[in-house]
Amino acid sequence: MQGKLYGIGVGPGDPELLTLKAVRILKKIDYLCYPISQPGKPSIALEIAAGAVKKNWCVAELYLPMTRDDSVLEGHWQEAALKISDILRSGQDCAFITLGDPSLYSTFVYLVRKLKVILAELEVEIVPGISSPNILAAQAQVSLAEGEESFLIIPGISDLDKIGQALDSFDNIIFLKVGRTFSEIYPILQEKGLEEKAVFGERCGFSDEYLSFNLQDVAQRQRDYLSLLFVKKGGFK
Amino acid sequence: MQGKLYGIGVGPGDPELLTLKAVRILKKIDYLCYPISQPGKPSIALEIAAGAVKKNWCVAELYLPMTRDDSVLEGHWQEAALKISDILRSGQDCAFITLGDPSLYSTFVYLVRKLKVILAELEVEIVPGISSPNILAAQAQVSLAEGEESFLIIPGISDLDKIGQALDSFDNIIFLKVGRTFSEIYPILQEKGLEEKAVFGERCGFSDEYLSFNLQDVAQRQRDYLSLLFVKKGGFK
Repeated sequence: MQGKLYGIGVGPGDPELLTLKAVRILKKIDYLCYPISQPGKPSIALEIAAGAVKKNWCVAELYLPMTRDDSVLEGHWQEAALKISDILRSGQDCAFITLGDPSLYSTFVYLVRKLKVILAELEVEIVPGISSPNILAAQAQVSLAEGEESFLIIPGISDLDKIGQALDSFDNIIFLKVGRTFSEIYPILQEKGLEEKAVFGERCGFSDEYLSFNLQDVAQRQRDYLSLLFVKKGGFK
Repeated sequence: MQGKLYGIGVGPGDPELLTLKAVRILKKIDYLCYPISQPGKPSIALEIAAGAVKKNWCVAELYLPMTRDDSVLEGHWQEAALKISDILRSGQDCAFITLGDPSLYSTFVYLVRKLKVILAELEVEIVPGISSPNILAAQAQVSLAEGEESFLIIPGISDLDKIGQALDSFDNIIFLKVGRTFSEIYPILQEKGLEEKAVFGERCGFSDEYLSFNLQDVAQRQRDYLSLLFVKKGGFK
Protein backbone atom coordinates (compact mmCIF):
# COMPACT_ATOMS: atom_id res chain seq x y z
CA MET A 1 0.00 0.00 0.00
CA GLN A 2 1.21 3.46 -0.91
CA GLY A 3 2.31 5.76 1.93
CA LYS A 4 0.69 9.02 2.94
CA LEU A 5 2.29 12.42 2.54
CA TYR A 6 2.14 14.96 5.35
CA GLY A 7 2.85 18.62 4.64
CA ILE A 8 3.88 20.03 7.98
CA GLY A 9 4.38 23.68 8.82
CA VAL A 10 7.11 23.94 11.44
CA GLY A 11 6.36 27.59 12.11
CA PRO A 12 8.55 30.67 11.99
CA GLY A 13 11.70 29.60 13.83
CA ASP A 14 11.14 28.78 17.49
CA PRO A 15 10.70 24.99 17.94
CA GLU A 16 8.16 25.78 20.69
CA LEU A 17 5.88 27.19 18.01
CA LEU A 18 5.27 23.80 16.45
CA THR A 19 1.74 22.57 17.05
CA LEU A 20 0.94 19.46 19.08
CA LYS A 21 -0.25 17.87 15.84
CA ALA A 22 3.01 18.58 14.01
CA VAL A 23 4.95 17.05 16.92
CA ARG A 24 2.70 13.96 17.06
CA ILE A 25 3.15 13.28 13.35
CA LEU A 26 6.90 13.97 13.40
CA LYS A 27 7.26 11.43 16.23
CA LYS A 28 5.17 8.87 14.37
CA ILE A 29 6.62 8.97 10.87
CA ASP A 30 9.99 7.46 9.95
CA TYR A 31 10.70 9.38 6.76
CA LEU A 32 11.35 13.09 6.67
CA CYS A 33 11.85 15.23 3.56
CA TYR A 34 13.13 18.75 3.87
CA PRO A 35 14.24 21.49 1.52
CA ILE A 36 17.72 22.97 1.27
CA SER A 37 18.45 26.11 -0.73
CA GLN A 38 22.12 25.28 -1.40
CA PRO A 39 23.97 21.96 -1.40
CA GLY A 40 25.82 21.54 1.89
CA LYS A 41 23.80 24.28 3.58
CA PRO A 42 21.70 23.17 6.59
CA SER A 43 17.92 23.09 6.27
CA ILE A 44 16.24 25.71 8.45
CA ALA A 45 13.04 23.65 8.58
CA LEU A 46 15.00 20.60 9.75
CA GLU A 47 16.76 22.58 12.48
CA ILE A 48 13.40 23.77 13.80
CA ALA A 49 11.79 20.30 13.66
CA ALA A 50 14.81 18.68 15.33
CA GLY A 51 14.62 21.34 18.04
CA ALA A 52 11.16 20.09 18.96
CA VAL A 53 11.39 16.33 18.26
CA LYS A 54 14.39 14.09 18.81
CA LYS A 55 14.26 11.22 16.37
CA ASN A 56 16.58 9.54 13.90
CA TRP A 57 14.44 9.91 10.81
CA CYS A 58 15.37 8.47 7.45
CA VAL A 59 15.80 11.68 5.52
CA ALA A 60 15.55 12.89 1.95
CA GLU A 61 17.21 16.20 1.28
CA LEU A 62 15.46 18.11 -1.51
CA TYR A 63 17.57 20.70 -3.26
CA LEU A 64 15.26 23.58 -4.14
CA PRO A 65 17.35 26.63 -5.03
CA MET A 66 16.07 30.15 -4.38
CA THR A 67 15.59 31.42 -7.88
CA ARG A 68 12.68 32.97 -9.69
CA ASP A 69 13.67 31.20 -12.92
CA ASP A 70 10.80 28.74 -13.41
CA SER A 71 12.67 26.65 -15.97
CA VAL A 72 15.39 25.96 -13.39
CA LEU A 73 12.90 25.35 -10.60
CA GLU A 74 10.78 22.95 -12.68
CA GLY A 75 13.63 20.43 -12.85
CA HIS A 76 14.33 20.64 -9.13
CA TRP A 77 10.67 20.25 -8.18
CA GLN A 78 10.41 17.27 -10.50
CA GLU A 79 13.49 15.64 -8.97
CA ALA A 80 12.20 16.31 -5.45
CA ALA A 81 8.77 14.90 -6.34
CA LEU A 82 10.42 11.74 -7.73
CA LYS A 83 12.32 11.25 -4.46
CA ILE A 84 9.11 11.61 -2.46
CA SER A 85 7.14 9.34 -4.80
CA ASP A 86 9.79 6.60 -4.35
CA ILE A 87 9.32 6.78 -0.58
CA LEU A 88 5.52 6.73 -0.82
CA ARG A 89 5.58 3.83 -3.34
CA SER A 90 7.70 1.80 -0.92
CA GLY A 91 4.73 2.00 1.43
CA GLN A 92 6.27 4.44 3.88
CA ASP A 93 4.49 7.54 5.15
CA CYS A 94 6.54 10.64 4.69
CA ALA A 95 6.50 14.19 6.05
CA PHE A 96 7.64 17.20 4.10
CA ILE A 97 8.49 19.99 6.52
CA THR A 98 8.35 23.64 5.60
CA LEU A 99 9.15 26.90 7.38
CA GLY A 100 5.96 28.73 8.41
CA ASP A 101 2.78 27.34 6.89
CA PRO A 102 2.52 24.88 3.95
CA SER A 103 -0.21 26.96 2.24
CA LEU A 104 1.39 30.39 2.32
CA TYR A 105 4.31 30.91 -0.07
CA SER A 106 5.62 27.39 0.48
CA THR A 107 7.26 24.98 -1.95
CA PHE A 108 4.89 22.29 -0.73
CA VAL A 109 2.15 23.20 -3.21
CA TYR A 110 4.49 22.78 -6.18
CA LEU A 111 5.62 19.39 -4.92
CA VAL A 112 2.06 18.17 -4.51
CA ARG A 113 1.21 19.28 -8.06
CA LYS A 114 4.18 17.34 -9.43
CA LEU A 115 3.36 14.30 -7.29
CA LYS A 116 -0.22 14.22 -8.56
CA VAL A 117 1.16 13.75 -12.06
CA ILE A 118 3.59 11.02 -11.02
CA LEU A 119 1.26 9.01 -8.77
CA ALA A 120 -2.21 7.90 -9.79
CA GLU A 121 -3.47 8.36 -6.26
CA LEU A 122 -1.99 10.53 -3.59
CA GLU A 123 -3.07 10.81 0.02
CA VAL A 124 -2.08 14.15 1.52
CA GLU A 125 -2.64 15.70 4.94
CA ILE A 126 -1.63 19.29 5.65
CA VAL A 127 -0.74 20.51 9.12
CA PRO A 128 -0.81 24.31 9.31
CA GLY A 129 1.99 26.27 10.95
CA ILE A 130 2.43 29.74 12.41
CA SER A 131 3.31 32.20 9.63
CA SER A 132 5.95 34.91 9.79
CA PRO A 133 3.43 37.83 9.88
CA ASN A 134 1.87 36.37 13.03
CA ILE A 135 5.19 36.04 14.87
CA LEU A 136 6.25 39.53 13.80
CA ALA A 137 3.01 40.88 15.26
CA ALA A 138 3.44 38.86 18.47
CA GLN A 139 7.01 39.97 19.03
CA ALA A 140 6.38 43.61 18.11
CA GLN A 141 3.10 43.54 20.08
CA VAL A 142 1.10 45.13 17.30
CA SER A 143 -2.19 44.08 15.74
CA LEU A 144 -2.11 42.95 12.11
CA ALA A 145 -5.75 43.90 11.62
CA GLU A 146 -8.78 44.67 13.74
CA GLY A 147 -12.47 45.41 13.30
CA GLU A 148 -13.29 46.14 9.68
CA GLU A 149 -9.72 46.72 8.57
CA SER A 150 -8.17 44.94 5.61
CA PHE A 151 -4.85 43.09 5.71
CA LEU A 152 -2.71 42.54 2.66
CA ILE A 153 0.35 40.33 2.26
CA ILE A 154 2.52 41.01 -0.78
CA PRO A 155 6.00 39.83 -1.68
CA GLY A 156 8.64 42.55 -1.42
CA ILE A 157 9.64 41.80 -4.99
CA SER A 158 6.33 43.15 -6.35
CA ASP A 159 6.62 46.00 -8.82
CA LEU A 160 6.61 49.52 -7.42
CA ASP A 161 3.23 50.44 -8.91
CA LYS A 162 1.64 47.50 -7.12
CA ILE A 163 3.35 48.51 -3.88
CA GLY A 164 2.09 52.09 -4.21
CA GLN A 165 -1.43 50.88 -4.98
CA ALA A 166 -1.38 48.53 -1.99
CA LEU A 167 -0.31 51.34 0.34
CA ASP A 168 -3.04 53.62 -1.02
CA SER A 169 -5.87 51.10 -0.88
CA PHE A 170 -5.48 48.97 2.25
CA ASP A 171 -5.21 49.49 6.00
CA ASN A 172 -2.49 47.02 6.90
CA ILE A 173 0.16 45.79 4.50
CA ILE A 174 2.94 43.32 5.07
CA PHE A 175 5.82 42.96 2.63
CA LEU A 176 7.51 39.57 2.69
CA LYS A 177 11.19 38.96 2.00
CA VAL A 178 12.17 42.62 1.85
CA GLY A 179 15.87 42.01 2.55
CA ARG A 180 16.93 43.21 -0.87
CA THR A 181 13.97 45.38 -1.86
CA PHE A 182 13.72 47.37 1.36
CA SER A 183 15.83 50.14 -0.20
CA GLU A 184 13.20 50.53 -2.94
CA ILE A 185 10.18 50.38 -0.64
CA TYR A 186 11.54 52.73 2.04
CA PRO A 187 11.48 55.87 -0.21
CA ILE A 188 7.85 55.11 -1.13
CA LEU A 189 6.95 54.99 2.56
CA GLN A 190 8.76 58.28 3.15
CA GLU A 191 6.94 59.89 0.23
CA LYS A 192 3.60 58.76 1.62
CA GLY A 193 4.45 59.84 5.18
CA LEU A 194 4.29 56.26 6.42
CA GLU A 195 7.83 55.72 7.70
CA GLU A 196 6.75 56.02 11.33
CA LYS A 197 3.84 53.66 10.84
CA ALA A 198 5.92 50.60 10.10
CA VAL A 199 7.85 47.87 11.82
CA PHE A 200 10.59 45.73 10.33
CA GLY A 201 11.34 42.22 11.49
CA GLU A 202 14.14 39.86 10.57
CA ARG A 203 14.36 36.18 11.50
CA CYS A 204 11.37 36.64 13.85
CA GLY A 205 11.01 33.59 16.04
CA PHE A 206 14.72 32.68 15.77
CA SER A 207 17.15 33.32 18.63
CA ASP A 208 18.88 36.08 16.62
CA GLU A 209 15.68 37.93 15.72
CA TYR A 210 15.85 41.66 15.02
CA LEU A 211 12.90 44.05 15.29
CA SER A 212 12.81 47.76 14.69
CA PHE A 213 10.28 50.55 14.38
CA ASN A 214 13.09 52.84 13.15
CA LEU A 215 13.35 52.37 9.39
CA GLN A 216 16.41 54.61 9.17
CA ASP A 217 18.29 52.09 11.29
CA VAL A 218 16.94 49.28 9.12
CA ALA A 219 18.09 51.05 5.96
CA GLN A 220 21.65 51.13 7.26
CA ARG A 221 22.01 47.48 8.12
CA GLN A 222 22.74 44.32 6.18
CA ARG A 223 19.34 42.63 5.88
CA ASP A 224 18.58 38.93 5.94
CA TYR A 225 16.47 37.08 3.37
CA LEU A 226 13.96 36.16 6.08
CA SER A 227 12.73 39.66 6.73
CA LEU A 228 9.41 41.44 6.57
CA LEU A 229 8.02 44.91 6.81
CA PHE A 230 4.61 45.68 8.26
CA VAL A 231 2.91 49.00 7.52
CA LYS A 232 -0.09 49.98 9.63
CA LYS A 233 -1.60 53.03 7.99
CA GLY A 234 -3.63 54.01 11.05
CA GLY A 235 -0.42 53.92 13.10
CA PHE A 236 0.34 51.85 16.18
CA LYS A 237 -1.80 52.65 19.20
CA MET B 1 5.13 42.38 42.21
CA GLN B 2 2.63 42.78 39.41
CA GLY B 3 1.78 39.69 37.34
CA LYS B 4 2.46 39.21 33.65
CA LEU B 5 -0.22 38.99 30.99
CA TYR B 6 -0.03 36.33 28.28
CA GLY B 7 -2.09 36.69 25.12
CA ILE B 8 -2.43 33.17 23.81
CA GLY B 9 -3.80 32.13 20.45
CA VAL B 10 -5.50 28.75 20.83
CA GLY B 11 -5.80 28.30 17.07
CA PRO B 12 -8.80 27.62 14.88
CA GLY B 13 -10.68 24.88 16.72
CA ASP B 14 -8.73 21.62 16.99
CA PRO B 15 -6.96 21.41 20.40
CA GLU B 16 -4.09 19.64 18.59
CA LEU B 17 -3.37 22.90 16.78
CA LEU B 18 -2.21 24.64 19.93
CA THR B 19 1.52 25.25 19.92
CA LEU B 20 3.90 23.67 22.42
CA LYS B 21 4.46 27.15 23.83
CA ALA B 22 0.75 27.79 24.35
CA VAL B 23 0.45 24.43 26.15
CA ARG B 24 3.51 25.10 28.35
CA ILE B 25 2.16 28.48 29.46
CA LEU B 26 -1.38 27.19 29.99
CA LYS B 27 0.03 24.45 32.24
CA LYS B 28 2.15 26.93 34.17
CA ILE B 29 -0.29 29.77 34.86
CA ASP B 30 -3.07 29.56 37.43
CA TYR B 31 -5.34 32.30 36.15
CA LEU B 32 -7.18 32.10 32.86
CA CYS B 33 -9.32 34.82 31.27
CA TYR B 34 -11.54 34.04 28.33
CA PRO B 35 -14.16 35.86 26.31
CA ILE B 36 -17.82 34.90 26.05
CA SER B 37 -20.14 36.49 23.51
CA GLN B 38 -23.34 35.93 25.51
CA PRO B 39 -23.89 35.39 29.23
CA GLY B 40 -24.33 31.70 29.90
CA LYS B 41 -22.93 30.69 26.53
CA PRO B 42 -19.75 28.57 26.62
CA SER B 43 -16.45 30.11 25.54
CA ILE B 44 -15.14 28.54 22.33
CA ALA B 45 -11.57 29.52 23.24
CA LEU B 46 -11.93 27.83 26.65
CA GLU B 47 -13.29 24.64 25.09
CA ILE B 48 -10.26 24.47 22.77
CA ALA B 49 -7.74 25.19 25.54
CA ALA B 50 -9.36 22.66 27.87
CA GLY B 51 -9.20 20.09 25.07
CA ALA B 52 -5.42 20.39 25.08
CA VAL B 53 -4.62 21.06 28.74
CA LYS B 54 -6.39 19.62 31.79
CA LYS B 55 -6.09 22.02 34.67
CA ASN B 56 -8.37 23.61 37.21
CA TRP B 57 -7.57 27.24 36.47
CA CYS B 58 -9.00 30.13 38.43
CA VAL B 59 -11.04 31.75 35.71
CA ALA B 60 -12.36 35.18 34.83
CA GLU B 61 -15.13 35.19 32.28
CA LEU B 62 -15.09 38.36 30.18
CA TYR B 63 -18.38 39.26 28.56
CA LEU B 64 -17.55 40.81 25.18
CA PRO B 65 -20.70 40.91 23.06
CA MET B 66 -20.54 40.65 19.28
CA THR B 67 -21.64 44.07 18.26
CA ARG B 68 -20.13 46.73 16.02
CA ASP B 69 -21.43 49.48 18.30
CA ASP B 70 -18.23 50.93 19.76
CA SER B 71 -20.02 52.77 22.56
CA VAL B 72 -21.41 49.45 23.84
CA LEU B 73 -18.08 47.65 23.37
CA GLU B 74 -16.06 50.35 25.15
CA GLY B 75 -17.81 49.64 28.43
CA HIS B 76 -17.33 45.89 28.13
CA TRP B 77 -13.64 46.19 27.25
CA GLN B 78 -13.16 48.53 30.19
CA GLU B 79 -14.90 46.10 32.56
CA ALA B 80 -12.83 43.20 31.21
CA ALA B 81 -9.61 45.20 31.53
CA LEU B 82 -10.47 46.03 35.15
CA LYS B 83 -10.97 42.33 35.92
CA ILE B 84 -7.59 41.49 34.36
CA SER B 85 -5.84 44.39 36.11
CA ASP B 86 -7.14 43.14 39.48
CA ILE B 87 -5.58 39.74 38.82
CA LEU B 88 -2.26 41.22 37.69
CA ARG B 89 -2.16 43.62 40.66
CA SER B 90 -2.62 40.69 43.04
CA GLY B 91 0.72 39.43 41.69
CA GLN B 92 -0.71 36.57 39.67
CA ASP B 93 0.27 35.90 36.06
CA CYS B 94 -2.73 35.59 33.81
CA ALA B 95 -3.43 34.25 30.33
CA PHE B 96 -6.05 35.67 28.02
CA ILE B 97 -6.97 33.04 25.44
CA THR B 98 -8.34 33.87 22.04
CA LEU B 99 -9.56 31.87 19.06
CA GLY B 100 -7.00 31.91 16.24
CA ASP B 101 -4.20 34.42 16.67
CA PRO B 102 -4.09 37.33 19.16
CA SER B 103 -2.88 39.81 16.50
CA LEU B 104 -5.42 39.12 13.76
CA TYR B 105 -8.94 40.40 14.42
CA SER B 106 -8.78 39.53 18.11
CA THR B 107 -10.21 41.33 21.11
CA PHE B 108 -6.83 41.01 22.79
CA VAL B 109 -5.47 44.25 21.30
CA TYR B 110 -8.36 46.29 22.71
CA LEU B 111 -7.84 44.80 26.15
CA VAL B 112 -4.14 45.60 26.13
CA ARG B 113 -4.87 49.21 25.14
CA LYS B 114 -7.31 49.57 28.04
CA LEU B 115 -4.90 47.88 30.44
CA LYS B 116 -2.09 50.26 29.50
CA VAL B 117 -4.28 53.13 30.70
CA ILE B 118 -5.19 51.38 33.96
CA LEU B 119 -1.74 50.07 34.91
CA ALA B 120 1.40 52.20 34.94
CA GLU B 121 3.47 49.28 33.78
CA LEU B 122 2.27 46.21 31.96
CA GLU B 123 4.30 43.17 31.03
CA VAL B 124 2.78 41.35 28.05
CA GLU B 125 3.85 38.27 26.10
CA ILE B 126 1.98 37.20 22.99
CA VAL B 127 1.89 33.61 21.79
CA PRO B 128 0.75 33.38 18.16
CA GLY B 129 -1.86 30.87 17.06
CA ILE B 130 -2.93 29.27 13.78
CA SER B 131 -5.41 31.55 11.99
CA SER B 132 -8.60 30.48 10.25
CA PRO B 133 -7.29 31.16 6.69
CA ASN B 134 -4.43 28.73 7.29
CA ILE B 135 -6.68 25.91 8.49
CA LEU B 136 -9.12 26.49 5.62
CA ALA B 137 -6.21 26.15 3.19
CA ALA B 138 -4.91 23.03 4.94
CA GLN B 139 -8.28 21.30 4.98
CA ALA B 140 -9.20 22.30 1.42
CA GLN B 141 -5.63 21.53 0.27
CA VAL B 142 -5.26 24.78 -1.62
CA SER B 143 -2.49 27.36 -1.52
CA LEU B 144 -3.34 30.78 -0.10
CA ALA B 145 -0.57 32.43 -2.10
CA GLU B 146 2.54 31.40 -3.98
CA GLY B 147 5.46 33.04 -5.79
CA GLU B 148 4.78 36.70 -6.43
CA GLU B 149 1.06 36.55 -5.74
CA SER B 150 -0.68 38.86 -3.31
CA PHE B 151 -2.99 37.72 -0.52
CA LEU B 152 -5.68 39.91 0.96
CA ILE B 153 -7.81 39.32 4.05
CA ILE B 154 -10.91 41.47 4.36
CA PRO B 155 -13.92 41.19 6.66
CA GLY B 156 -17.08 40.02 4.90
CA ILE B 157 -18.84 43.09 6.27
CA SER B 158 -16.78 45.43 4.07
CA ASP B 159 -18.77 47.61 1.69
CA LEU B 160 -19.49 46.21 -1.77
CA ASP B 161 -17.23 48.71 -3.57
CA LYS B 162 -14.29 47.61 -1.47
CA ILE B 163 -15.12 43.96 -2.16
CA GLY B 164 -15.26 44.61 -5.92
CA GLN B 165 -11.99 46.52 -5.81
CA ALA B 166 -10.31 43.73 -3.85
CA LEU B 167 -11.45 41.14 -6.38
CA ASP B 168 -10.20 43.28 -9.26
CA SER B 169 -6.80 44.12 -7.78
CA PHE B 170 -5.47 41.07 -5.95
CA ASP B 171 -4.69 37.43 -6.69
CA ASN B 172 -6.00 35.74 -3.58
CA ILE B 173 -8.73 37.15 -1.37
CA ILE B 174 -10.20 35.74 1.79
CA PHE B 175 -13.41 37.11 3.26
CA LEU B 176 -13.77 36.57 7.00
CA LYS B 177 -17.05 36.02 8.80
CA VAL B 178 -19.20 35.77 5.68
CA GLY B 179 -22.05 33.91 7.37
CA ARG B 180 -24.48 36.77 6.88
CA THR B 181 -22.88 38.63 3.98
CA PHE B 182 -22.29 35.62 1.72
CA SER B 183 -25.58 36.34 -0.06
CA GLU B 184 -24.24 39.79 -1.05
CA ILE B 185 -20.77 38.62 -2.06
CA TYR B 186 -21.91 35.59 -4.09
CA PRO B 187 -23.61 37.67 -6.86
CA ILE B 188 -20.42 39.75 -7.22
CA LEU B 189 -18.41 36.58 -7.73
CA GLN B 190 -20.92 35.35 -10.31
CA GLU B 191 -20.76 38.68 -12.14
CA LYS B 192 -16.96 38.50 -12.26
CA GLY B 193 -16.94 34.85 -13.33
CA LEU B 194 -15.22 33.77 -10.12
CA GLU B 195 -17.80 31.43 -8.59
CA GLU B 196 -15.78 28.35 -9.54
CA LYS B 197 -12.56 29.80 -8.19
CA ALA B 198 -13.65 29.89 -4.60
CA VAL B 199 -13.92 27.67 -1.56
CA PHE B 200 -16.13 28.22 1.47
CA GLY B 201 -15.26 26.96 4.91
CA GLU B 202 -17.27 26.94 8.11
CA ARG B 203 -15.95 26.08 11.57
CA CYS B 204 -12.71 24.83 9.98
CA GLY B 205 -10.68 22.94 12.54
CA PHE B 206 -13.76 21.99 14.60
CA SER B 207 -15.23 18.50 14.51
CA ASP B 208 -18.32 19.76 12.64
CA GLU B 209 -16.37 21.60 9.96
CA TYR B 210 -17.98 22.15 6.55
CA LEU B 211 -16.04 22.80 3.35
CA SER B 212 -17.38 23.32 -0.15
CA PHE B 213 -16.16 24.40 -3.56
CA ASN B 214 -19.80 24.60 -4.70
CA LEU B 215 -21.08 28.06 -3.84
CA GLN B 216 -24.60 27.22 -4.97
CA ASP B 217 -24.75 24.64 -2.18
CA VAL B 218 -23.32 27.19 0.23
CA ALA B 219 -25.93 29.77 -0.78
CA GLN B 220 -28.71 27.36 0.14
CA ARG B 221 -27.55 26.51 3.63
CA GLN B 222 -27.78 28.15 7.02
CA ARG B 223 -24.29 29.61 7.56
CA ASP B 224 -22.38 29.86 10.82
CA TYR B 225 -20.72 33.03 12.13
CA LEU B 226 -17.31 31.33 11.96
CA SER B 227 -17.16 31.03 8.19
CA LEU B 228 -14.85 32.25 5.48
CA LEU B 229 -14.70 32.40 1.74
CA PHE B 230 -11.45 32.14 -0.20
CA VAL B 231 -11.27 33.33 -3.80
CA LYS B 232 -8.25 32.31 -5.87
CA LYS B 233 -8.42 34.29 -9.07
CA GLY B 234 -5.97 32.06 -10.91
CA GLY B 235 -8.16 29.08 -10.01
CA PHE B 236 -7.18 25.95 -8.10
CA LYS B 237 -4.53 23.81 -9.79
